[in-house]
Amino acid sequence: VKTDFRSDNILGCSPEIAEALLRACQEPASPYGNDPVTSRLHQRCRDLFETDVAIFPVSTGTAGNALAIAAMTPAWGGVFCHEDAHVHREELGAAEFFTGGAKLVPLPGVNGKLIPGALAASIEDVARGGRMAIPSCVSVTQATEAGTVYSAEELREISEIARRSGAGMQMDGARFANAVAATGRSPADLTWRAGVDVLVFGATKNGALAAELIVVFRTELADELGLRWHRGGQRLSKMRFLSAQLDAYLTDDLWLRNARRANGAAARIAAAIATIAGVEIVRPVDANVLFVRLDPAIERTLRERGFLFYDWSLFGEGIVRMVTGFDTTAADADALVEAIRVASLQPR
Amino acid sequence: VKTDFRSDNILGCSPEIAEALLRACQEPASPYGNDPVTSRLHQRCRDLFETDVAIFPVSTGTAGNALAIAAMTPAWGGVFCHEDAHVHREELGAAEFFTGGAKLVPLPGVNGKLIPGALAASIEDVARGGRMAIPSCVSVTQATEAGTVYSAEELREISEIARRSGAGMQMDGARFANAVAATGRSPADLTWRAGVDVLVFGATKNGALAAELIVVFRTELADELGLRWHRGGQRLSKMRFLSAQLDAYLTDDLWLRNARRANGAAARIAAAIATIAGVEIVRPVDANVLFVRLDPAIERTLRERGFLFYDWSLFGEGIVRMVTGFDTTAADADALVEAIRVASLQPR
Amino acid sequence: VKTDFRSDNILGCSPEIAEALLRACQEPASPYGNDPVTSRLHQRCRDLFETDVAIFPVSTGTAGNALAIAAMTPAWGGVFCHEDAHVHREELGAAEFFTGGAKLVPLPGVNGKLIPGALAASIEDVARGGRMAIPSCVSVTQATEAGTVYSAEELREISEIARRSGAGMQMDGARFANAVAATGRSPADLTWRAGVDVLVFGATKNGALAAELIVVFRTELADELGLRWHRGGQRLSKMRFLSAQLDAYLTDDLWLRNARRANGAAARIAAAIATIAGVEIVRPVDANVLFVRLDPAIERTLRERGFLFYDWSLFGEGIVRMVTGFDTTAADADALVEAIRVASLQPR
Amino acid sequence: VKTDFRSDNILGCSPEIAEALLRACQEPASPYGNDPVTSRLHQRCRDLFETDVAIFPVSTGTAGNALAIAAMTPAWGGVFCHEDAHVHREELGAAEFFTGGAKLVPLPGVNGKLIPGALAASIEDVARGGRMAIPSCVSVTQATEAGTVYSAEELREISEIARRSGAGMQMDGARFANAVAATGRSPADLTWRAGVDVLVFGATKNGALAAELIVVFRTELADELGLRWHRGGQRLSKMRFLSAQLDAYLTDDLWLRNARRANGAAARIAAAIATIAGVEIVRPVDANVLFVRLDPAIERTLRERGFLFYDWSLFGEGIVRMVTGFDTTAADADALVEAIRVASLQPR
Repeated sequence: VKTDFRSDNILGCSPEIAEALLRACQEPASPYGNDPVTSRLHQRCRDLFETDVAIFPVSTGTAGNALAIAAMTPAWGGVFCHEDAHVHREELGAAEFFTGGAKLVPLPGVNGKLIPGALAASIEDVARGGRMAIPSCVSVTQATEAGTVYSAEELREISEIARRSGAGMQMDGARFANAVAATGRSPADLTWRAGVDVLVFGATKNGALAAELIVVFRTELADELGLRWHRGGQRLSKMRFLSAQLDAYLTDDLWLRNARRANGAAARIAAAIATIAGVEIVRPVDANVLFVRLDPAIERTLRERGFLFYDWSLFGEGIVRMVTGFDTTAADADALVEAIRVASLQPR
Repeated sequence: VKTDFRSDNILGCSPEIAEALLRACQEPASPYGNDPVTSRLHQRCRDLFETDVAIFPVSTGTAGNALAIAAMTPAWGGVFCHEDAHVHREELGAAEFFTGGAKLVPLPGVNGKLIPGALAASIEDVARGGRMAIPSCVSVTQATEAGTVYSAEELREISEIARRSGAGMQMDGARFANAVAATGRSPADLTWRAGVDVLVFGATKNGALAAELIVVFRTELADELGLRWHRGGQRLSKMRFLSAQLDAYLTDDLWLRNARRANGAAARIAAAIATIAGVEIVRPVDANVLFVRLDPAIERTLRERGFLFYDWSLFGEGIVRMVTGFDTTAADADALVEAIRVASLQPR
Repeated sequence: VKTDFRSDNILGCSPEIAEALLRACQEPASPYGNDPVTSRLHQRCRDLFETDVAIFPVSTGTAGNALAIAAMTPAWGGVFCHEDAHVHREELGAAEFFTGGAKLVPLPGVNGKLIPGALAASIEDVARGGRMAIPSCVSVTQATEAGTVYSAEELREISEIARRSGAGMQMDGARFANAVAATGRSPADLTWRAGVDVLVFGATKNGALAAELIVVFRTELADELGLRWHRGGQRLSKMRFLSAQLDAYLTDDLWLRNARRANGAAARIAAAIATIAGVEIVRPVDANVLFVRLDPAIERTLRERGFLFYDWSLFGEGIVRMVTGFDTTAADADALVEAIRVASLQPR
Repeated sequence: VKTDFRSDNILGCSPEIAEALLRACQEPASPYGNDPVTSRLHQRCRDLFETDVAIFPVSTGTAGNALAIAAMTPAWGGVFCHEDAHVHREELGAAEFFTGGAKLVPLPGVNGKLIPGALAASIEDVARGGRMAIPSCVSVTQATEAGTVYSAEELREISEIARRSGAGMQMDGARFANAVAATGRSPADLTWRAGVDVLVFGATKNGALAAELIVVFRTELADELGLRWHRGGQRLSKMRFLSAQLDAYLTDDLWLRNARRANGAAARIAAAIATIAGVEIVRPVDANVLFVRLDPAIERTLRERGFLFYDWSLFGEGIVRMVTGFDTTAADADALVEAIRVASLQPR
């Protein structure tokens, strides 16, 4: 039974993806994306998003985000994001690097989401002075770093604020699949119809070995982005080995089925532990990530029993993060719940 | 039978590597390189190179080269390389990007190799002025873009020139395995013992799906390089999927066996076609790449029969490049030779 | 009588500086700083700061700050500064540009000053994660953007916090002279003895035509900074025309006399208007900059009478900034005071 | 009498320029170019160049060139220039820095000039591959580093080659005045009418203290360039002190009169020494720079007599460079000639 709830980046991969990858190895193919698998992936993306798109497979979310932001942000641009955004706190300045020195403007926000009014005020402040940065990009994470999910309407409101100042909108979709699963909205509704210009569609955390896909809706950005992608060391000669993963991911709704399983397990855990004494769920559990304040004795007992999860003191003392994955079963969820329950009953 | 001799980047992968990759998918593992497969790979590299090394798996040779060069080159540094070097001609300024704007100084050289005297003169010229760039790095490709291989002694002579001006030495080893196979020298002899500071050890072209390994011999460069690697979008969370490929590559000499097969096929072809009328081998065939001037009628016939290979007019009119791979059999080689022979016999 | 209190960057120059500049024009001199005036300036700086220093004359404060920060900040570095800092809000990302993409971390603080506890907490947060940036520099402005002045003890406390995390300390001294005049402390006490590694010593706002001086106390930073300075387009061939200004500036305490005059005029104004109805001084007037909330009618009347000053809504509604200069006389100050007094007496 | 022929960057300044500068000091003015002197300069430039232009005063030629190149060159752009170009050999990678890592492609050329056929071939080679760089800029120096001057027709031929590949044309006009004086053509004929997009119009070497002017003919480049200029630390708050120099420079043809004097002195020297034994003029003397191969005994004697000039071994053994200036009189020229003549008569 599963005891490792540290992150969805510790998982293996979906069998369908492994098989597709092996199939792609069987015979030679043209390099640099001029292969049938990449073509098929491209068409699949057009169908899935119900519009023309340009695509750029990449090997990490960091590269994907940094390239996507750079696609719309000059070196003197301002990039507005939540203060906990992965692009700001975890990527060691990748966005600054790929843009040639843009300025990230971190903003506070409840439950990991940008607050429209605060965003508008900040953009206006920066735009008015004209000497701090030129507002160029709003970066949102979907699902957020707090495990919450923006609705299509919330995204639209944000993108309209961005648009008013001439800025574009980039979406860090490391857990985009979980957001789609959570909202029941279409990929189109949660992206370009809501004003997203470039999405980084994550697969690594949801069943792939290592593959992310930059999906460009504002296709006039694609030519230059293609040059950045090459120059940035992300254009694989054997690109089909990324494409094959992504193609399988998008086949027969694998991406969505995986995300639903992960979300379902998280919801099951959340529902069951919400009433346990010494346990407090501190963020809405919209997707597959739980933030929980545990009584220290409970935490200690869980760790002694071999459960793994990260401390998340960024959100407050005693808070931990638990992440379910595409392979988390109901039994896995129940075992974790049971362990928490038992731990909570121990004399302190 | 194989008809595609365009490049070694069109191939699939070695079965051993595919199997290792699948094995690595079976269970969860700590992210960002803190996993057993990456540890094993690290130890294997220490053994193979007979010294302590730091390692950084990356997904492309372009990223590997750019990071390796940046490890020893400040933004105002000069990087000396052959004018045909992949880092200069094919990577869209990745080295300039990752260094923050260093200057590549391309030098002519016979058969793809730097000429020690010319290199020394160029470095001296740049160093004397002090306003063009600060000599920081000599970049060599092994095997070269001309399909030739530097001897350990040639490398040592070059590195001593670099060292005299305070510059380091980086090796683009996209076909390093082929160079080891060709020379019969040890990996240590062809790298740090010959003065190489950082090697980019290629696997993608020699049996992996997509994996390259930065091997740092001057280990004091590793801490900063680790930051660049993360910031550069090359630090995979599921790093073990790169490491597993590389680990299998280095197991039981797979890398060397693959390279020997590719080199052997190229040598077999070269030997057989050398005497065919209308065919001229224009570069020494040290490794797995052949540069051949074909009579136009021969070229036309080969293409009509479905053989694929690139024009290489950079080296002169009528010259084409043919590349063998880890999976090229003697029969494949013979079939190509036979096709050339038949084509040469046709009335023109 | 003076009516323009917009900024000290609107002023002409001290006659002594103009004369020195003209003298320097009379005969040829070696370029790039190898001239007697620059040598003399260098010695003068060693004397003034009571220690060995390296110096780099530059033509703007923006260039000076960006170079000084870059001297201690790698591309992945974090630069901690007040959220109103000129380097963050007014220089269009110059620090990001010259560092190759460092991350500025803006912090709130009372009266334009960093709060030691908040600074320490932010540095610790960034250092702990290790993925947002590597703490590299604390940037302070002296006098601050709020017109206040750090004491030597406050600076020392900040620099010790910086030092603990391995970061250095840069001082934007656009109004450094005013700070020295305000505190009565020596230049040494307010810089290297308080832990400052690199000072950008402003002259432009205090009597020069256009000249700023980077003064490096941690002299091991000088070699690389010299390269950045050249590459950054700041190494004048006719450098003596910057040096001559700076040399005259430091002769016979001109810099200090000028600053005392400016500070004195500001203090005179502040003392006189503090008790006028409809006028509120909203920041301590330590140097030559006043932030004043004016009753709208007063502001209107002043503007109608031709007085010039900037709105400063960044600090709150109705707040304006008034700046005195090296040439502001007591009569100028009194005339402004009188105008405010008269305006406040008008029926509304 | 003048004995220092090292460079035109060792000179003082024209009295007219010093006077204008002093006049500009007399009263306050709006900062950042919003002053009457800068406005007047702008209008003067429109008149001089017979077209609308945008202007950006800067403090060094290095900054001017780097900004001008960056105005038309993305980070992945290729900049084609003569292998001796100042932007390539003397500016420590400023162009690479300001562009974010563009690639300079140095080309050989007779007498410091680009050879149209070779330029076209190089651009075509780079464009065809598409992976070395995207041809973006041709940079020419006028007068050249070899002291020669492009005709309007030569410039047009080059710019047409640039245009065909989508590249722009930047002119390093450190000695543009000397080129205008040499050709007798109008500033318009030698710039935009010949296809130049951005000129860096030098004044520092021809009578100013330190001032260069970026003149943008393709005015749609101006907005972004203005941001780069600020961010690059070149936007002076007291900009009028640059503008005043430049305004005086362009008043009553001072720039042209100065250049004519310098050119005249050089021509006078060249004509006189051409027939002296042991003296060989190795480059056409079109402007104010002479390259001369001196018999070692002559060189020694001149140096012993206090004459100063630079060795220029880049152009061959025994070659020296002598530069005349705006203040070089006929008597100065004759004294140099006489010294050379005497030296040549000495027994060896």
